[in-house]
Amino acid sequence: MVEKKFVVTPWEVKGEVDYDRLIRDFGTQPITGPLAKKLEEILGDAAYLVRRRIFFSHRDLDLVLNDYWKGKGLFLYTGRGPSGPMHIGHIIQFYFTKWLQDKFHTNVYIQITDDEKFLEEKRNLTYEDTQRWAADNILEIAAVGFDPDRTFILQDTEFIGHAYPMVLKIARRVNFSTVKAVFGFTGETNIGFAFYPSIQILPSLLEKRRCLIPSAIDQDPYWRIQRDIAEPMGYYKAAAVHSKFLPALTGLQDKMSSSKQETTINLSDDDKTVRIKVYRYAFSGGQATKEEHRKKGGDPDVDVPFQWLYMFFEPDDKRIEQIRAEYKSGRMLTGDLKDILIEKVTTFLNQHRQRREKASNLVHLYKRDGALAREMWTRDFTKS
Amino acid sequence: MVEKKFVVTPWEVKGEVDYDRLIRDFGTQPITGPLAKKLEEILGDAAYLVRRRIFFSHRDLDLVLNDYWKGKGLFLYTGRGPSGPMHIGHIIQFYFTKWLQDKFHTNVYIQITDDEKFLEEKRNLTYEDTQRWAADNILEIAAVGFDPDRTFILQDTEFIGHAYPMVLKIARRVNFSTVKAVFGFTGETNIGFAFYPSIQILPSLLEKRRCLIPSAIDQDPYWRIQRDIAEPMGYYKAAAVHSKFLPALTGLQDKMSSSKQETTINLSDDDKTVRIKVYRYAFSGGQATKEEHRKKGGDPDVDVPFQWLYMFFEPDDKRIEQIRAEYKSGRMLTGDLKDILIEKVTTFLNQHRQRREKASNLVHLYKRDGALAREMWTRDFTKS
Repeated sequence: MVEKKFVVTPWEVKGEVDYDRLIRDFGTQPITGPLAKKLEEILGDAAYLVRRRIFFSHRDLDLVLNDYWKGKGLFLYTGRGPSGPMHIGHIIQFYFTKWLQDKFHTNVYIQITDDEKFLEEKRNLTYEDTQRWAADNILEIAAVGFDPDRTFILQDTEFIGHAYPMVLKIARRVNFSTVKAVFGFTGETNIGFAFYPSIQILPSLLEKRRCLIPSAIDQDPYWRIQRDIAEPMGYYKAAAVHSKFLPALTGLQDKMSSSKQETTINLSDDDKTVRIKVYRYAFSGGQATKEEHRKKGGDPDVDVPFQWLYMFFEPDDKRIEQIRAEYKSGRMLTGDLKDILIEKVTTFLNQHRQRREKASNLVHLYKRDGALAREMWTRDFTKS
Repeated sequence: MVEKKFVVTPWEVKGEVDYDRLIRDFGTQPITGPLAKKLEEILGDAAYLVRRRIFFSHRDLDLVLNDYWKGKGLFLYTGRGPSGPMHIGHIIQFYFTKWLQDKFHTNVYIQITDDEKFLEEKRNLTYEDTQRWAADNILEIAAVGFDPDRTFILQDTEFIGHAYPMVLKIARRVNFSTVKAVFGFTGETNIGFAFYPSIQILPSLLEKRRCLIPSAIDQDPYWRIQRDIAEPMGYYKAAAVHSKFLPALTGLQDKMSSSKQETTINLSDDDKTVRIKVYRYAFSGGQATKEEHRKKGGDPDVDVPFQWLYMFFEPDDKRIEQIRAEYKSGRMLTGDLKDILIEKVTTFLNQHRQRREKASNLVHLYKRDGALAREMWTRDFTKS
């Protein structure tokens, strides 16, 4: 590949993302035509995700929808690497997954990859760090509102002992050349990290139905390996639906990161902080002066407040197109647009935090005591 | 290396073993001089193992003995890969370890590497096979008579969940280049097998004292890695004492193997089978005819019955030298020598099997309920 202007791997996202190019590079399929229509039907009030191409790419989504219509069912699998606090970009992916659970009425497996984050040397996290962030992140996820009887949060360091026979069966089918080719591992890669893909593949094989993985496309390499080994093991190849990254506050070319506070909104940011960050840092597609803006209008395509509304905070199609038109025409000023976003974000965060307050009572259901969690902890993996 | 007439790796032993060459190739130390004397003193009635150079090589045994004399203590670690029934060559190593436990009054950790045997593809074992052999082999080991409060049998697939944080800390310090160099792993090596050395290293770091590993020298590569990472992790480098392989019945150049019944005695062989095997297959250093033997005498150096007596079944130095002299002179015939061995082997096997009958009551002590096992299962490995 020449002129690599952006980089997307499971551990790195850099530069402005060209989503059509990602589809070519990763060899996935765009969500268009009759398939898009079918998915829209199922998603109902969340169909805007398809119409606006937030869900932009897939693997085997057509087969998943066939199984769904035939009553064979499916299950969802997603995850989180607990390396620090979750920001707004992270949590949005979980809301997407919750909506899919509601619409498809399915089980969801959420893997907390605390082992991966410990093994990833450049992060320099102690084991204790990963445990603290795992507990914190699980609370955020519990606040999203997944069905407690159909959702299993599996924290790797807790679950691996129970599911180890299955992990071994996966590991025996994947060799070092494969992980080297897929992830670019080298001799310097530690043997824990080299082994880890077997653990990330595990949840995709927890049911003998199709597994649909809603994730950013950067996780796709894992599923390519899964798709090579699933059928010989008697399971289905994982299907995936890829969603776009919420862009950084500072502009589409930046990466949202908790370690760069100007790029993101934390789930703990209060109303005032949200206001300050959006006013101060959110990259605007507006003109330099009010007069110039009124005359020339703003550019919603590069305007981060508009993009955030478009991707998540304004699901109403009429309203978002109205905002786009007003802004483009210059009738709506940058400040007005930012005010709309601030109102949406603060409302969202306040609601999320209210649910988080009560979420500590839910965690045991997701991890141990809900119907699906109980089923997983009582399954005999030596027989699988 | 040129002219490789024999091969010794953790998974392969082929050809007649040149023990002095092994010491050079593996870079270990011979057990000689004052060190040998000191070890003999401690071993008492088992000192013949040193005098006869059955324990022929070591790493850091001098440091271990210093710690022992100073009262700092030490602990022992050995293991078994449960890939099939144990034969007489396997069990003898465990008797050696039991004697060391008795003489040093120490804890012993015995790792059952069922995961390794499942991951070793060429063996083609199902997961269920490894579990069946693990249960069988643990019974044999329990029959050896280790102290139930100072011995912990850890079966990997059972223990890894509990000790996973510690396994991760080991794995983070070992990279693929290292396991490639040490074990000759390649791109074809599956990622479970590439990861497995972290699990084999675990027991050597279960106490903050020196770990002495009595084993065949073929396991040495694991401890070379351990010795690179132990001190930075706050533990001691593993020490080792290497013992010779019991030669195959069919001759010193063969490998004892359960899959070649003529090469070995099974722990389940009855008296008649032992007699038949020794008569039929045991390689003799005697002459072709009785007359020739009386005239020229036998060669105890290549005679397998003599070697078995020398290595394990006749600890009395006077008696073994008497046998050697009689045989060499031709006064003792091959049949007489074989009869001596048959008597010793059948007595040993009958006693071992009697203990095995009662050993099923001991297994829970070694695995879960003995003092050391309880300590291990209640240890918080997240804090280690």
